[in-house]
Amino acid sequence: MTDPKNAAETTMKLTIGAYLLARLSDMGIRHLFGVPGDYNLQFLEQVKDADGIDFVGTCNELNAAYAADGYARLNGASAVLTTYGVGELSAICGVAGACAEHVPVVCITGAPPLHAMEHNYCLHHTLADGNYDNMMTCYRQFTAAQTRLTPINAAAEIDRVLAACQREKKPVYIQLPSDVSYEVIRVPRNAPGLAFVSDPSSLEAALRHLLRMWSGARRPAILLDFDAERFGMVSPIKALVEKAQVPYANLTTAKCILDETHELWLGPYVGKGSQPLVRDRIEGSDCLIATAPRFIESNSGLFTQSLPEAATVMLHGDRVVIEGRTYTGIRADQLLQRFVEEIEPVTKAAGKVREPADWKAASGAPLTQARLWKQMAQFLKSDDVVVVENGTSNIGLSQEVLPAGIDYVASTIWAAIGYALPALLGTALAQPDRRQILVIGDGSFQLTAQELSTIQRLGLKPRIFLLNNAGYTIERFILGMKDAYNDVANWNYTKLPSVFADEDAYFSAKVTTEGELDAAIRQAEALDKLSLIEMQLDPFDAPEKLRTFGRATADFDYGPNGPQHHAAEMAGSPSGGKRAASIRRAFAPAV
Amino acid sequence: MTDPKNAAETTMKLTIGAYLLARLSDMGIRHLFGVPGDYNLQFLEQVKDADGIDFVGTCNELNAAYAADGYARLNGASAVLTTYGVGELSAICGVAGACAEHVPVVCITGAPPLHAMEHNYCLHHTLADGNYDNMMTCYRQFTAAQTRLTPINAAAEIDRVLAACQREKKPVYIQLPSDVSYEVIRVPRNAPGLAFVSDPSSLEAALRHLLRMWSGARRPAILLDFDAERFGMVSPIKALVEKAQVPYANLTTAKCILDETHELWLGPYVGKGSQPLVRDRIEGSDCLIATAPRFIESNSGLFTQSLPEAATVMLHGDRVVIEGRTYTGIRADQLLQRFVEEIEPVTKAAGKVREPADWKAASGAPLTQARLWKQMAQFLKSDDVVVVENGTSNIGLSQEVLPAGIDYVASTIWAAIGYALPALLGTALAQPDRRQILVIGDGSFQLTAQELSTIQRLGLKPRIFLLNNAGYTIERFILGMKDAYNDVANWNYTKLPSVFADEDAYFSAKVTTEGELDAAIRQAEALDKLSLIEMQLDPFDAPEKLRTFGRATADFDYGPNGPQHHAAEMAGSPSGGKRAASIRRAFAPAV
Repeated sequence: MTDPKNAAETTMKLTIGAYLLARLSDMGIRHLFGVPGDYNLQFLEQVKDADGIDFVGTCNELNAAYAADGYARLNGASAVLTTYGVGELSAICGVAGACAEHVPVVCITGAPPLHAMEHNYCLHHTLADGNYDNMMTCYRQFTAAQTRLTPINAAAEIDRVLAACQREKKPVYIQLPSDVSYEVIRVPRNAPGLAFVSDPSSLEAALRHLLRMWSGARRPAILLDFDAERFGMVSPIKALVEKAQVPYANLTTAKCILDETHELWLGPYVGKGSQPLVRDRIEGSDCLIATAPRFIESNSGLFTQSLPEAATVMLHGDRVVIEGRTYTGIRADQLLQRFVEEIEPVTKAAGKVREPADWKAASGAPLTQARLWKQMAQFLKSDDVVVVENGTSNIGLSQEVLPAGIDYVASTIWAAIGYALPALLGTALAQPDRRQILVIGDGSFQLTAQELSTIQRLGLKPRIFLLNNAGYTIERFILGMKDAYNDVANWNYTKLPSVFADEDAYFSAKVTTEGELDAAIRQAEALDKLSLIEMQLDPFDAPEKLRTFGRATADFDYGPNGPQHHAAEMAGSPSGGKRAASIRRAFAPAV
Repeated sequence: MTDPKNAAETTMKLTIGAYLLARLSDMGIRHLFGVPGDYNLQFLEQVKDADGIDFVGTCNELNAAYAADGYARLNGASAVLTTYGVGELSAICGVAGACAEHVPVVCITGAPPLHAMEHNYCLHHTLADGNYDNMMTCYRQFTAAQTRLTPINAAAEIDRVLAACQREKKPVYIQLPSDVSYEVIRVPRNAPGLAFVSDPSSLEAALRHLLRMWSGARRPAILLDFDAERFGMVSPIKALVEKAQVPYANLTTAKCILDETHELWLGPYVGKGSQPLVRDRIEGSDCLIATAPRFIESNSGLFTQSLPEAATVMLHGDRVVIEGRTYTGIRADQLLQRFVEEIEPVTKAAGKVREPADWKAASGAPLTQARLWKQMAQFLKSDDVVVVENGTSNIGLSQEVLPAGIDYVASTIWAAIGYALPALLGTALAQPDRRQILVIGDGSFQLTAQELSTIQRLGLKPRIFLLNNAGYTIERFILGMKDAYNDVANWNYTKLPSVFADEDAYFSAKVTTEGELDAAIRQAEALDKLSLIEMQLDPFDAPEKLRTFGRATADFDYGPNGPQHHAAEMAGSPSGGKRAASIRRAFAPAV
């Protein structure tokens, strides 16, 4: 039986909104992205009154979701606030992206008052049919847990849903009815932590198994994908690399996850598209420590990966599989920490650290895709946050070896164009003291361009590099090279910041040559301002990698009867059997 | 048994993409809004090759959906093309809005190749989990029919889904896998029409019943909501009004659906919030012809409508209910046409046509919400298309009597801010020869501002009136009057068009007084250009209607414990019982 006196001592009264905010704060969330609406204004009042969490109004909800995604990647978690129906559905593409990319975003939607939902009232922001299940049905597809808060369930449900977010590193969905926020409930005085903790005996058993396997290993190796970062494994893996001198590779979806200039970095693993050394060390390993690689067509050489299944230690966020045996209820990062403590150190072999290639601008030379990415790579420094838009920017930059310590933010599985600019708002707010760099194409920029306004309003000072090549270059190289459907309007991009702020608040330049780009970068770096450098490129130029990738994608997508054959024949490309064989090669990386 | 020879004569070979395009063309669709992506490029090739349908690339997919909504309202139907996952989820808020507002939009999404979906490949633009049901699950919530096309189902499924779109006036959803478009199928040489046709005997029975009821009616009246427009009933109802001299009212969700200056127009019906005459004629009618009114809180005086149920002829798009008896399988427009033919004409009573109020600008007077809407109303002319953003613009303008023949486009049930600017792109493309006017607030404008670029790129010349009052005014009057969360960045709005086009291609002005607005309008109308007039208003000014609406909405949304009481007490507003009573009054219209 519960002792009411005891309950009074161990619990306290709080409004539901205040408790939700307290728990977001426990997760380390200091900013809440979103757009006001009548069903969430009452919660915004509570945000205003709360310590340690600020509302960041974005221009629209999709941008809020992308900003929250970027923020969570650096901060560990984030939150977005929308209003029912119109707001949350505008955000859902970004939330689905966070789900695909394993990013923990708490989605809070201000819902109609409970009394209205219970009586199936027909209200604005709904289909006016009394149905209040449809929005949650949509969010259920892309979130790890969902709830509709009521006064009697709120204390338990808030904790359940936020714990799922922490544990699974996926978005979660909370409907906060507008008449519920200010209801007072009893909550624990010292609420337990939300983080999932390993079962000690399961952890111990896994550790013993892993050490046993390790002791016989002659060719250990590590294969990293982005779950290593999401689930806190990067630091113990770094320690493992140093202590045991284990070589490592990464999927292209986990660019820069560990130092690319390190002598033990093998390069990217891309199935049969990998360099021979990488394939040999990964596929031929007798103890492959892999952080849940997620193979899709573009990071697997079209599904040609071949891991040594029986010799793989597969590290998931919530379980570990060693030589085919699954250990559940343990956190891989905690296992790795213990493992690194227990193993014997190996003396460091004399090895040469990889240096980024030396590169000199040819001052009068027009910018070309073949050389631009080397110039960009040279500009980047350790500790930079580099947000790259899917498309040419990511394909171009992903071929370069970048300095250690860079956070490389890209949405490579979800691959939504328009992601990067709002994501930059998030990364810049999460870690404002680091240099924040955005590389983005013109087509992508146009999708979410208004969020530059919020970046400027908040006084953030990222360096923005915009490729103007008059269209969706990645699409051109798949199909429709010169077709109008791949064109975008040619904006006067460098004028846009002046719509949002005074002209002396930022630096902008249009460049067409390597020398101009060099000079513009030097000018921008001498200032303490936001900069926007528009790089004008030939619309029909592309990184070499994109040329082959485009052909392969067309064959995969459109099949043997697709229109790409007609286009390819005209361009004198190989066809038929030759083309089929070229698909695999095309997904191979250059490095 | 099918005779193969006969089949060859009555059918022909066509690619699936070409057949889909032919059927869109049969629906009168001449433009396809959307954004290219690798899964739909092959279909864009087919669009390029098709006659009579043009692709209109928008800056993002949400804007495409809103543009398609606006286009369909004037054109009768529209289509939007997205790519899988990232594209369609970005558009879904606009599609849900079209569903709420009964707008027939064909949503085509280029999906991954069938071979990949059948084998549950993990691909980009998905959650990389092999699940290919989640996107359709989302769209199922907001569409009347859904399909995934395959070579064997395409001919039947395309017709089934497009017929549902026509019949139900709601969006439909078509997944076109990227390897399916170019597959050749057999389709009918003369495909049957997609429109739903009434069952003759059911129509006849309904007509007899209606005529019987009519013959005894002493107080007939008509109540219009927007389904009248969607289902083609406006023209026969207009004929009915003239032939039988029947008075009519409309819901506020159907502003301008029939001439507001007509002597038989009663005014808006808003439940207990209506003018006494309107309530008397509608609620006391002994033969109320009603076009499926959809009562929500804001158009019903908070659900205080009271129709004479037993004496109501309820006209739905697909059925009619007369004195409680339902006639299914008939189209209300066809019933009305027959009905008007059969009834006796009534001699027109001498009556006075309502005139829009005469109004003169006070040249030095600052713009105020109390006077602005009269000035705007005076500017409007018969045959204008007037797109108004939800919020202050709609609330302000909806209080004015406008000239006959205006198409008034607003999203009053779904009420998504950001709708109006892209919707204007759609209405302007649908009927480019009419004067197109947009009235929009600053907060709303920022959500989808980039679509101005497409409007300019296509050389469209709408008149845009932008209210700059530094934030979400409608939200301020609900809660948080002076709180930062209701602020938006103060853009230099009149500079934005210069980012998208040369400065001599448009006219822009900032105005703060009635005289300046008058002068700017005169200047703009003398030119054959797009115009953008920014009207600067006090952030804390609002149409009188919004003040009461805001208070009532806060009470409805946040309930007895909500924060609005605190705010209201501080402002000396009535509270408790008085406030509760004021809710109903607040939803009443001024006219």
